Amino acid sequence: MKYEITPGKFITFEGGEGVGKSTNIRFVQAWLEARGIECRVTREPGGTPLAEDIRSILLAARDESVDPMAELLLVFAARAQHVNQLIKPALEEGTWVLCDRFTDATYAYQGAGRGLDLEQIEQLENLVQGGFRPDCTVILDAPVEIGMSRAKNRGQLDRFEQEQREFFEKIRGFYRGLANAGGQSRYALVDASVDLESVQEQLSVILQRLV
Amino acid sequence: MKYEITPGKFITFEGGEGVGKSTNIRFVQAWLEARGIECRVTREPGGTPLAEDIRSILLAARDESVDPMAELLLVFAARAQHVNQLIKPALEEGTWVLCDRFTDATYAYQGAGRGLDLEQIEQLENLVQGGFRPDCTVILDAPVEIGMSRAKNRGQLDRFEQEQREFFEKIRGFYRGLANAGGQSRYALVDASVDLESVQEQLSVILQRLV
Repeated sequence: MKYEITPGKFITFEGGEGVGKSTNIRFVQAWLEARGIECRVTREPGGTPLAEDIRSILLAARDESVDPMAELLLVFAARAQHVNQLIKPALEEGTWVLCDRFTDATYAYQGAGRGLDLEQIEQLENLVQGGFRPDCTVILDAPVEIGMSRAKNRGQLDRFEQEQREFFEKIRGFYRGLANAGGQSRYALVDASVDLESVQEQLSVILQRLV
Repeated sequence: MKYEITPGKFITFEGGEGVGKSTNIRFVQAWLEARGIECRVTREPGGTPLAEDIRSILLAARDESVDPMAELLLVFAARAQHVNQLIKPALEEGTWVLCDRFTDATYAYQGAGRGLDLEQIEQLENLVQGGFRPDCTVILDAPVEIGMSRAKNRGQLDRFEQEQREFFEKIRGFYRGLANAGGQSRYALVDASVDLESVQEQLSVILQRLV
């Protein structure tokens, strides 16, 4: 697999619902900025006005049943816009980009979760991203019941959050598999079931290796 | 290339702006219904509530520059929804589907017009449609100046209609090329620069071969 080298680094954050992605991204941003590294925080699907419009279409509750391939193509349409209009230009200027979910979430949710063919996802990943991949992917891991109860406390659940328990177990299993692949992989597993201070100690160790 | 056989037939209508697609689709619908054939008229991008939402995103005038790959993926996302939720179910019930633009328009507008790689379009066509193709594609052909003046008379031009003359010449050239490929092709060229009655005589000849 070919990687593109840019002055800035691209860090993505993955995990099921309620594992604390937003809180921990803010921690990483503060940690990097304290060391003089400029950061841009963004999210998928979304990140630009067009990509956020696509996000609204994806998350809307609908009477119409959504074709799985249509959903997959919408995700990658938003990603093409986000990568080419925001992420790559920032990295090329030396800004680090911290992104709440990226293509691993597509493999986890649409692939492992909904059963879409992983090879079709890979075909689209190569079409849209070429050799572009994150420099580091932080996987925040916590038991499904912890994540779901945190997500429910935040208010109404969207279409994805309404999925059943079994679905979220598949997602978690897939992310744990990625993180355990070993070798020189870009994945870093963080135990997000412990208290926030302990989570952030784990993040600091990962960040030390990146700066 | 593999075709899927369904009880209904799928006829698509292609051509540049202002060649009279809507008027002539209504004529074809009336012609078929007079012979007891049930028809469903639809359009691309669009045709279902989700696909129409995607159409709105595509046609909106934006400050943000739209990544060509994002545009292409939005077009195919709408198409996946349209084919799987509306077109195929109708054809399987024996209803004929008359569609204002389909994948040939993607090759013409995004490929020939905007210069996107035709092989990338073909890759997405195969991913979304498998072997599904129209039974007949009517190409309505008229000089660009005739079409543009008709389109202008209809009111404000959308993002696609604001393109320059040269762009529309490329589109027209591409469609004429398709129609002239010869052999047992599904393409039928109609001279749409003549009066409506003469256009509809040409359409009747094409329809006689289909029923």
